[in-house]
Amino acid sequence: MPSFTVVGLEKFPLVKVGDDLARIIVEAAGANGVVVEDGDVIVVSQKIVSKAEGRLVRLRDVVPSERAREVAAVTGKDARFVELVLQETGRVVKAVPGFLVVEDRRGWVCLNAGIDKSNVSPESDAYLLLPVDPDGSARQIRREVMRLTGKRVSVVICDTYSRPFRRGQTEFAIGVAGVKVFRDYRGERDLFGYVLQVKNVAMVDELACAAELVMGQGNEAVPVAIVKGLKRVELCEESEASVNDLRLAMGEDFFEKSM
Amino acid sequence: MPSFTVVGLEKFPLVKVGDDLARIIVEAAGANGVVVEDGDVIVVSQKIVSKAEGRLVRLRDVVPSERAREVAAVTGKDARFVELVLQETGRVVKAVPGFLVVEDRRGWVCLNAGIDKSNVSPESDAYLLLPVDPDGSARQIRREVMRLTGKRVSVVICDTYSRPFRRGQTEFAIGVAGVKVFRDYRGERDLFGYVLQVKNVAMVDELACAAELVMGQGNEAVPVAIVKGLKRVELCEESEASVNDLRLAMGEDFFEKSM
Repeated sequence: MPSFTVVGLEKFPLVKVGDDLARIIVEAAGANGVVVEDGDVIVVSQKIVSKAEGRLVRLRDVVPSERAREVAAVTGKDARFVELVLQETGRVVKAVPGFLVVEDRRGWVCLNAGIDKSNVSPESDAYLLLPVDPDGSARQIRREVMRLTGKRVSVVICDTYSRPFRRGQTEFAIGVAGVKVFRDYRGERDLFGYVLQVKNVAMVDELACAAELVMGQGNEAVPVAIVKGLKRVELCEESEASVNDLRLAMGEDFFEKSM
Repeated sequence: MPSFTVVGLEKFPLVKVGDDLARIIVEAAGANGVVVEDGDVIVVSQKIVSKAEGRLVRLRDVVPSERAREVAAVTGKDARFVELVLQETGRVVKAVPGFLVVEDRRGWVCLNAGIDKSNVSPESDAYLLLPVDPDGSARQIRREVMRLTGKRVSVVICDTYSRPFRRGQTEFAIGVAGVKVFRDYRGERDLFGYVLQVKNVAMVDELACAAELVMGQGNEAVPVAIVKGLKRVELCEESEASVNDLRLAMGEDFFEKSM
């Protein structure tokens, strides 16, 4: 029968700028008694990728622009924090008291351009920006893990987001390497011969959710999970998959003008 | 280290009106060599719940109202299909050529009130409505599985939905029994002592996603998956959790007016 296992890597060291994440992941797997195998999907929290890549910023070092001061006045947020968000933003979608929704430079609509404070640093004014090129980060980790282990793995970088229409957050893929983003059923037949019209499952988002179930968001310190044994995952060349495949072009969003 | 396993139940029989799903699930688990244990989360596809509850409708039996004919003219959909959607709808959110987005009677914003055609029936005009009371359905399955096995399990009923802002579909919980909907971190401290402000993870949606990874959407015939060994799942009394906890009241959606 179809099955898979998700294991979270415990006692993961705190990650610093310049750390070699692939090596740390392989060592942590070993310390947890987890053998890296062909077909494993290594799901890595955005937090440690951003830290290793030096994406930590301190508000004391930020000088807000005039535009940031204006948006800060509307939202009630610190102008230096707003400056960080705007630097990561393509388009401000909504600025109201308490909330700043933007389409970030990568094309994702989210709160605060994904800039976050939890599990970032002991310094109270430290914030963490998303990786500059999450697919690139995933590819780098993948290549180095493959070099160290000799196994063909794939990598998904994940982060936690609020969703429209529904309370609470779930995990989403923000970078991928070596794994197909979708399982596309369109054109295939169902159990009764009906040709499927719409079903195109965002597998990498579901992998991110499965990983979050062992990662947690508080002081669990489990920033990496490995999904093992899932045959439905389709491995591919790095050039064949990008998280950008999840982006909707103008006019493609079924829910446009639904809010 | 934290870990869990998801097993899909293969060779599941085709479900008919009036079938005792709990008994079929327990038998299918046995046939797959899966032992039901305390703490298992049994994730059940909406499809088989709706079928067992007689929610299959044939368009030939539907007489469209005047309103359905109007919406059908706008959307280009069959007026009888639109009639089905409107009967399940609280509020039409958006009706444009090709798309009908509604807030359904249960308060969910989705395409076509969740009415679907894939893996429904060999009859070409057969459609499947969502269960009338998915929490109630989950509770009934849970109680009967617990009676049959003597184990304390929880149940999540899941369905596949398109999301705003992002291509493709993922799985969501539409009914729950005996498992907390969220892992709420608000007020807790992170690794560095920072008090978390927002993090409230929709665990049951992530459980649904994990289950979908073995279920599939085509001719896989795996409508039930069991999540085993996940300690982070918080079991609870049935009265302590409802899928309605995921509903946002007016003014609570961060993304309101973002589209």
